[in-house]
Formats: sequence, C-alpha cells, structure tokens
Amino acid sequence: MSRRRYYLEDRALDEAIARFEAAIERAGGIHPLDSETIPLAEARGRITAVPVWAARSAPHYHAAAMDGIAVRAAATTGATESSPLTLALGSQAVWVDTGDPMPPDTDAVVMAEHVQTLDDATVAITAAVAPWQHVRPLGEDIVATELVIPEGVPLRPVDLGAIAAAGHATVTVRRRPRVAIIPTGTELVTPEAVAAREAAGQPMRAGEIIEFNSLILAGMVEEWGGQATRLPPVPDRQDLLRAAITSAMADHDVIVINAGSSAGAEDYTATVLADLGEVAVHGVAIRPGHPVILGVAGGKPALGLPGYPVSAALTADLFLRPLLYRLQGLTPPPRPQVTAAISRKLLSPLGEDEFVRVTLGRVDGRLIAAPLMRGAGVVMSLVRADGVARIPRFSEGLHAGSEVMVELLRDPAEIESTIIAIGSHDLALDLLANHLRRAGAGRRLSSANVGSLGGLMALQRRDAHLAGVHLLDEETGEYNISYVRRLLPDEEIVLVHLAYRDQGFLVAPGNPLGLSSLRDLVRPGVRFVNRQRGSGTRILLDYHLRQEGIDPGAIAGYQREEFTHMAVAAAVQSGAANVGLGIGAAARALGLTFIPLFSECYELAIPRRHWESELLAPLRRMLFDPTYRSAVEALGGYNVARMGEEVRVS
Amino acid sequence: MSRRRYYLEDRALDEAIARFEAAIERAGGIHPLDSETIPLAEARGRITAVPVWAARSAPHYHAAAMDGIAVRAAATTGATESSPLTLALGSQAVWVDTGDPMPPDTDAVVMAEHVQTLDDATVAITAAVAPWQHVRPLGEDIVATELVIPEGVPLRPVDLGAIAAAGHATVTVRRRPRVAIIPTGTELVTPEAVAAREAAGQPMRAGEIIEFNSLILAGMVEEWGGQATRLPPVPDRQDLLRAAITSAMADHDVIVINAGSSAGAEDYTATVLADLGEVAVHGVAIRPGHPVILGVAGGKPALGLPGYPVSAALTADLFLRPLLYRLQGLTPPPRPQVTAAISRKLLSPLGEDEFVRVTLGRVDGRLIAAPLMRGAGVVMSLVRADGVARIPRFSEGLHAGSEVMVELLRDPAEIESTIIAIGSHDLALDLLANHLRRAGAGRRLSSANVGSLGGLMALQRRDAHLAGVHLLDEETGEYNISYVRRLLPDEEIVLVHLAYRDQGFLVAPGNPLGLSSLRDLVRPGVRFVNRQRGSGTRILLDYHLRQEGIDPGAIAGYQREEFTHMAVAAAVQSGAANVGLGIGAAARALGLTFIPLFSECYELAIPRRHWESELLAPLRRMLFDPTYRSAVEALGGYNVARMGEEVRVS
Repeated sequence: MSRRRYYLEDRALDEAIARFEAAIERAGGIHPLDSETIPLAEARGRITAVPVWAARSAPHYHAAAMDGIAVRAAATTGATESSPLTLALGSQAVWVDTGDPMPPDTDAVVMAEHVQTLDDATVAITAAVAPWQHVRPLGEDIVATELVIPEGVPLRPVDLGAIAAAGHATVTVRRRPRVAIIPTGTELVTPEAVAAREAAGQPMRAGEIIEFNSLILAGMVEEWGGQATRLPPVPDRQDLLRAAITSAMADHDVIVINAGSSAGAEDYTATVLADLGEVAVHGVAIRPGHPVILGVAGGKPALGLPGYPVSAALTADLFLRPLLYRLQGLTPPPRPQVTAAISRKLLSPLGEDEFVRVTLGRVDGRLIAAPLMRGAGVVMSLVRADGVARIPRFSEGLHAGSEVMVELLRDPAEIESTIIAIGSHDLALDLLANHLRRAGAGRRLSSANVGSLGGLMALQRRDAHLAGVHLLDEETGEYNISYVRRLLPDEEIVLVHLAYRDQGFLVAPGNPLGLSSLRDLVRPGVRFVNRQRGSGTRILLDYHLRQEGIDPGAIAGYQREEFTHMAVAAAVQSGAANVGLGIGAAARALGLTFIPLFSECYELAIPRRHWESELLAPLRRMLFDPTYRSAVEALGGYNVARMGEEVRVS
Repeated sequence: MSRRRYYLEDRALDEAIARFEAAIERAGGIHPLDSETIPLAEARGRITAVPVWAARSAPHYHAAAMDGIAVRAAATTGATESSPLTLALGSQAVWVDTGDPMPPDTDAVVMAEHVQTLDDATVAITAAVAPWQHVRPLGEDIVATELVIPEGVPLRPVDLGAIAAAGHATVTVRRRPRVAIIPTGTELVTPEAVAAREAAGQPMRAGEIIEFNSLILAGMVEEWGGQATRLPPVPDRQDLLRAAITSAMADHDVIVINAGSSAGAEDYTATVLADLGEVAVHGVAIRPGHPVILGVAGGKPALGLPGYPVSAALTADLFLRPLLYRLQGLTPPPRPQVTAAISRKLLSPLGEDEFVRVTLGRVDGRLIAAPLMRGAGVVMSLVRADGVARIPRFSEGLHAGSEVMVELLRDPAEIESTIIAIGSHDLALDLLANHLRRAGAGRRLSSANVGSLGGLMALQRRDAHLAGVHLLDEETGEYNISYVRRLLPDEEIVLVHLAYRDQGFLVAPGNPLGLSSLRDLVRPGVRFVNRQRGSGTRILLDYHLRQEGIDPGAIAGYQREEFTHMAVAAAVQSGAANVGLGIGAAARALGLTFIPLFSECYELAIPRRHWESELLAPLRRMLFDPTYRSAVEALGGYNVARMGEEVRVS
C-alpha cells in the first residue's frame, strides 16, 4: 500500500480564494472586530473604529498670534513709521504674548517690532493693523463638532495631536485581530530549547528541525496589524493537534496551523479541520506553497500552511494578509511593482502560478531581476530577495532578458543603491557587504555565486557591476587577464586586486587519511568533492591535474559538484566526502583541517564606467579601509598587501 | 523698552545643519549607541548591532526533500513505468518523510508516487533517480559561519526566521536612541488633565492650551526608531526649565524642548541651553519653523522647537529625524517625491525656504497639488496634507499651474484613489468622506472649502472631480443650473442632488435679541457675521436683501467674512457677533439657536466623465446607501428624499 492518504487538489489561485471566502461566509462571515478605547499615547498605528468628531474648538478663544499689543484695529488707522500713533496702555493697548487670549474689545495685534514704549503708561505704534490681523480666531484650526479623523484610518503621530487638540484624551480603535500560530511536527524544537540544550552540551540530533516558521508568521501578522500568539510545537498526533486547535479557537480570531498540510502519513491538519469545521481548499496550483489548506474551524477562519519556510511565508501573504486586513475593515495596501529584465531563462510548469524570488539592481540603466534558488526550504532566498516575480499559470516560463513584473519587498531607493556582484564567492565579499552596510554609506552589496566564468558572462550580459574572479591562465600562469580579454573584448575592464588567498585541501580534523598532494586523490577509499565547471577553483584543479598527469576519471567524486567553498567544506564535515579543494577560511569556519597547496589571486573584474561611478565610490574607499583589511586578514589564509591595486586590462 | 530680548538669526537651512553638526562634534560627536541582546520574538524592526554569522548549518544533516524511499541512486538505474525495478526494504530502500535524515549509504529519494508496495519486504520503483535527487544536502539553506544578516539592518520577519534557522535564539541589536520631550509653557495643560477637569465640571479657561505637540513629537521619534519620554509640561520659569533639562540629560541621548524658542519675554530655552552647553543656531530662514534652536546640553544634542504644532513637526523632521537615524548608524530613508501642478498662485518670501502643505489628487491625468492653510498653528493642515512642497529661498513663489516637487506623506496608491471636492462646505460632505472610508471601498474624499463659485472655477481649471454648490439664480429662482451653464459652457456637467437644507439665523441660545427676519439685521446693537463673497449663502443673503430692499451698508458686520458655516457659528458662540446666516446643523453643533428662513438646494456639480468614472463609483453607490442617508438626516435640517437624482445641465 502507498503511504499517501490524501489527494491534493490543484485549485487555481483565484478559485481557492473564492472557495475560502465562501466557507467563511457559510460559517457566519467576517464581522468587524469589537473596538477598544485607549490613551492617545498608545494609539500610533491603530485603526479608528468610529469617526473622531471635535469635542472642542482650537483655539477655543480668540488668541494673539504675535507678541505685541492687542488693540482695536480702528484705533490704529494712519500709524506709520514717520507718523507714529500714541496709545494708552490699559485702555487702548494691552501687551500680549503669542497664545494669550485677546482682551475684551480688542480685535487685532500690533507686532512688538512696531511698538515703542514711551513710558509706563504709553506706547507709540509705527504701523496700522486691519481687523483680526495677527489674531487666531476661535476655531481657526478646529471647529467643535467637525470631522477630525474618519473611521478606519491608521493613526499617524500628527493625527494623535489633532485628536488631543480637538479635546480628547483617548481614542476608540479597532481591536487587533488575534491570530494563533500552531507549529506541528514531532521533529520541531524551539530555538530556545536548542540553545538551552547546547549550553548543556547536548547537540541537535539529525532529523530535528529548529521551529522558526512561527517567528516569521508572527512577525508578518504584526506587520499586518494583528496580534500573534506563538503556541508551542505540537507533536504529530491527531488528538494533540485537535486539542491545540480547539483551545486556540476560544480566544483567537484566526487559526494558523503549520504544517501537516501535505499528504504524508503524519499530516493530520486536514482531517482535524474537517472535523472541527470545513476544509474548503486542500491544494492550490501555486509554486511554492501547493499543499495549503483553507477552511474554518469553530466558525473562525483556519489555514493550514505548508512546512517549508518559503511556502509558509508565501501562502501567508496570499491568504492570511487579505484576511487580516478585512478583519480590520481595511484593504491591503498594494505593494509597489517594477518592470525588470530577467537575468536568465526560467522554465515554469503550465497550470501553476509560480512566485520566483529575485534580487534586483540597476546596471547600465536596466533594472535586472536575478532569480534566487527556487527551493522552498531555502529561507535565505527570502532574506536576500528584493522582490517576487509572478509567472502566471498560462506561461511556460521566461526567456533570458524578457521583461517581468516584480512586486517589491524592499524600498526602491535601496534597490537603486545596490551593487551587484556576480561571480566567484569569497568570504571577503561577505565582509565587504557587511562593512559597506556598517559604514552607513548607503550601498548594499548583493552577491550571487556562479563561479568566475559565470561572473564574466554576467558582465557580458550587463547583469552585474562587478565579478569576483580567480581564473588561472594555463599558458601564461597569469590570473584573470587573458580570460577578461577573451570574454569581454569590447569592454574597458579594470581588474582590482582583492587578496591573495591560499587554496588547498579541506579534510577532516587532523587529516586522518594523511592527504598532502593531488596524487593522493586517486588513492582507493578517498572520496573527493569538486567545484562546479567554470569556477576558478575547478580550473586550478584541472590545470594542476594536467600538469601532474593525473586522470580526473580516476578520482572518486570528481563528478560531484558544489557551488561554494562552504558547500565543499560542509560535504567534508558531513563525511559525504573525505576531501575537497577550497580556501583556508572555509576549512577554519567548519573546524576542518586545511592543507595549503597553491596561492591564487582573487580579483574583482569591473567595467571602468562602473568602477568610476558614484555607485561604487564607497566600495572603492572601503578597499583602503584598515578595519576592513584587518577583518579579511583575520579570516586566515589571506594576504591583503595589494588590496585595491588596479590593473587595466583593455 | 521693547520686550524683545533676543535677536533671532536667519541662518540658511544647510548652514544651520552644518553648525548643529559642528556643535555636536565639538561636544564629543555622535557615538554609535551601545547594543543589547534580545529574544528574536521581540526583535522585529530593531537594527542589528553586529553581523549575524550562522552558528549552524540548515539543514544540519542531509534530509529527504520528498516523502518516498531513500535509496542509492546507482541502484535505480533503468527503472521506468514499463520496467519497474524491485528493491528490498531495509537493505536497499527505506521509507522516509520529508525532513527525515537520509539513512546511511543512501543518496537520493524516489518519490512515493513512483513506489509500489509489493509486500512487507519489497517495493517496486517506476523511475530512476540521480545522485542527490530529492535530497536537501547539509547546508543547502545556510552554511555554518556564513553571513546571515549584516549589521545595521532593520530586522524583518523573515530575517528573524533565518537567524533562528542559523542557530540563534537571540540577536544583538542597537539600543534605541532615547529622546526626552520637554513641553514648556505656563499655559499648557495635558489632554488627561483637561478630561479630568471637565469630568469635574471645570471647563478650560481662555489662555489655556492643550499640550498635544509632545504626542506628535513622541510618535515621530518612535517612527524614526527612537524611544520617547514625554515629560510633564514645565511652567515658564528659567529655574524649572533648567532643572527639567538637567534631569533629562542624565538618561537620554537627545533633548527636545518645545517651545520657548522664540524671542518673547518668557522664552528661556536659548538662555538655559547656552548655560548648559552651546546654542549653535537660533533662528533658521525657513517657514514655518523660523525660531528653532539647535545646540548641545551636557554633551547631548539639544533642540528647542517652536511652539506652533506645524512648526514643531516640520523642524523635528528637518533636524531631529536625520539625527536619530545617525545615532542608529543609518541614513534616513528618502521620501518618495512626485511632480504636481500647483492649483493656485503662491507667494513666498525671498530668503526663506518655505514648506507648503498640499493635498494631492489626480484629475484628468494631471496630479494637482492644492495648498492648505499656511498658518503654523493649524494642525489640521498637517492631518489633511498628502505632501509637502518646498519653495526654495531663491524663489518668490509659484504661478498657478506651475510644476512643483512634492515630498509625499501618504502612500501614492492612496493619492491615486482620492476624490477631490472643491466648493461649498457641508457637514454632509464630512459624513460622505467618513462613510466612504468606512465602506472600505478604497476611496478617500478630500474636500477644500472655497465656496460654491470657487468650486465651479476649480472645475474650470480641472483641479477637482466635483464641486458642492448651492447657487441661487436671482432671475429664475432655480439653483445652480444657470451658473454651471455660464461658467462651464464646454463641459458636460451632471448636477447630483445631495439634499435640501435649511438656511437661517444662527443666534445665541434662546435668541435673546429676538431676531426673526432679515430686517432685524439693521437694528442697532445687532452685530452680523457674513460669509465670503461667492459662497452660496452670501448670494442667498444678497438676493433676499435686494428683494426686501435692505442696504447691506446698514448691517453692522456685513464686511466680516468667514469661510465656513462652522466659523460663522463659532463667531456667534464666542459673542464676536450676534447673528449669522448658515445651516441648522452648524447651529445645533455649537449649541446655538437656529431660526430657519429659507430652504435651499445643495448639489454636487460633476463633469460627466468623472461622474461615470471608476474612481467615483463608490461615491455614486453611497448616495443610495440608507446608512449614509439616515446619518445626514440625523444632522437635522436636511431633507434627503431626492439624494442621488441627476440633472443633466449641458
């Protein structure tokens, strides 16, 4: 028997939303939440539940609008610099400060600049005033009973001031919708539990997963105006899940279960929700996020979100966000959108709406959208994303360079100030990103790791501002120059030295197999992990293999390719391989032993128009910043003596 | 002797900022705030103080990425739908759920869909898999030691998830800058004190002012990432102000004093700041906000902001906002800007940067910026403002229709969905604005009160979508039609009936002077308050005065013009006048007696292309909404029987 127990539907997105709304309607519909009256000082960002009408006028009396003397305007006629008029203090003129009530029978103020004190009882004025001049009449700002703030408005600081000015110390606002977030899964452990156990010397076990989706979902709920309760993880038992949902129903407006929404043996969410209410949708034709459940439980909207973090966040955005705004009587604010050119071909299955996370940056005037890893388990793809491109279900994908609409997740100004690095990965680039951020120079370094050759091709396509490269020319023994000349013959490229860095074997701690040269790779029992074709490390390896006459086919694992130094180190750490070629920093980072073999030259290839641009100016300066240089040296295996030196290639 | 004691400077804005920064530098400069380590669940919106490096990989083991059986890929070669391969459970195949660790010696997962259970010990597979297929290798998402979040980043929900996934339960963030807000002024009373006193039957006295600026300033400080302390108002005494500042210096990073920054007799802020530190600037050539003080006290930046709410908010935005971002190591995010056509001529003094609050809306494709009241005391001008236009100090102003850059205070989408009403004011329009907001229809009604004729001229200029009008044709006795035909001969205009409403005398409670007809206005001792020329009420008055042969010159107060019904009512309530002509609702609102004299027809004049537009659709529907109609009737003096009826004029 197969262990699949449910058939997941493939509802189109709009149909799924309609079915969800209909189920909510059947269960009694969405009622506006009750309201609460709170002090103004706590009301920023809250939504008015009723209109605020002015209880008093502001000012509530005729007030002097200048420092000077209050007068009857008629008594000032004819006063000028050359023929001042004399007024008796007390009867004809009264000193007032700004904000003072106008004395009876006065209707204007002569500014202090136009008043000369003659003696204790007399002043002279050098200017006439019109009736009501320099007076703030009663109600100039607010007239009692007028509308100050309509209902359904998110309160800004200035609104709070106006409400106070209109005579209120409190304001009646809508209650925030309460959302219960129930993580499910026997394998889940909370970050706090992990920290406590590790402090006690007990490491996490394989199969255990840190429960972090509820942090993401709770934060999103709060951004959308709700109040989230993060409940403790519920093990995969139907009775426990049912009890958790039932208890949460009592004092929440919306129930979110994460996950157990798929069709595996331990996915109970649909069963329990069907029992407590109704499952309106189980399975939506979207990617990621397919196995989502939409329904009601105990009359409350209930959502079963998939377990992968990207799927959970995306489905919350699609189904929970509009619901929370509706509960507050609001429509969700539309996100800004931009049109961008997609940097590479994207295939997408017919019949599914696909949501692709992309980074964005402007290169040569074109806004470039570079797709991030599509795995729904890669939370870093959400962290790095600047926007989300939607590929509709009637499309099979996008050609490289074609235009795509991208919904922005980041401020457009930040995107305009992004430096795009595509090429070989290096920890010194991570550090550069951090130091640029720290310097507050208003630049963000976004880096994609596709190897050195991939970086130069990105420069060819004008998809990046710079490429990190360490490509050995097997004939000249020189680094980078010949590659740049061949691949970018029409571009004026500057090669900027970043560092010399050691490349060598990454091996288990203590080097148990005693590996010390390339020849050791063909020893029986040695499993190698390689870098991808086109990467500088791979070219370095192949060059030296040829020099030493070693047949790559004789190296076990030569076909297994990883895309970063760190992934190679991780493969060695996990025991999946015994040895890889990489940089010393990666070995040190994961506690591996490093056997240096070669020193190589890591440079940044930068078209001159970018290198001299305003955008890159903070990066230029940073290469000479002693703080940054020592941070790179502290990684180990780096020599920064020539950092920032330029070689003009063409 | 004059009571002016200080000479206010006229520093140019950029010079003022430079002097302020230099003074802060002399006092020791801005040091990054210390950091604090807090639980992830409390860290949304906080700024990372140090980079977050991954403490563990995610996943931290090779994990199944599908439900199915874990296998060695090599053992599946050749399996297809038509020639399945048989595998022994336990030795060759192990059932796994998504997320399970891969059993030893397996390197791929065959999806459950491609597995048939033959018996307890054997399965058949109908598809081959490649090495590492359907496996999430160790570190696929995050590799231990890699950079997860740089420092200086405001944490979003997804960042919190990634930090947890990377093995942390806490995060180190920058402390929020602490800002003390010290209101000064003997005349100030807190909203809470007013509420308490009124509950005890003690009304506010003339000369007292509700202290609400600190609510605005505190809200702004919080929006900018700071933590505000609102201190109790300090009376105008130098020793008390000095004590308040000294005490606040001890545990705050920035001191804000509001106000006492001008040059009046009781303006001690500059004296005290000079004594406790340095006054770098006293007076900036900006409008509003001229008398601002920038300096340091006890080594901390100290700002004396002017007392008028608009000045206080504007100067906080200019001088405090960049400071708070700097204290957090950030640059203030630029506000979005738009280019708009200014709706009327604006004069602006040479030598001052002027900041004009405007409302914005799109009419016939043009974005129109309509200036709001310029008085710095009018907090409602900030509430209503959609943006701020800056008129540089080298300009003498703007011609009507000329282009101006506007910094947005509101979401652009909200501006695009704004219906602009310019014309005669009516409480039924306030209610319409509120009901549109409440209906959640995504429309905002922005209304400017310039009288009926002003409204028709706004339609002429294409500055508005509709105009509220009640213009009596003195020859035909009909309302509105002839005016519209004359003023808008080339436009197809629809007159939409809103309500019949009573116009009559607004008099003191009980009508002490016994006024009952227009002829009573010329009685000795009767002081009238008029509406502005062009307003429907004024035309109605003048028509009936002529009909009855009454000389306007014989009416005391005929020259005193107010711009709204409510302002007329307020003048009567305050005793500044005995009687005005207006609508019943205004009388009732301020507790006046209403003597109905005439019934008039209040209509909305709307170009047909707007009336039938998508933008106005929710407004069209609202006119037939029973809730809205009864709300208007409840105002009193309204007849809504014909609401929504259309008259085609041309």
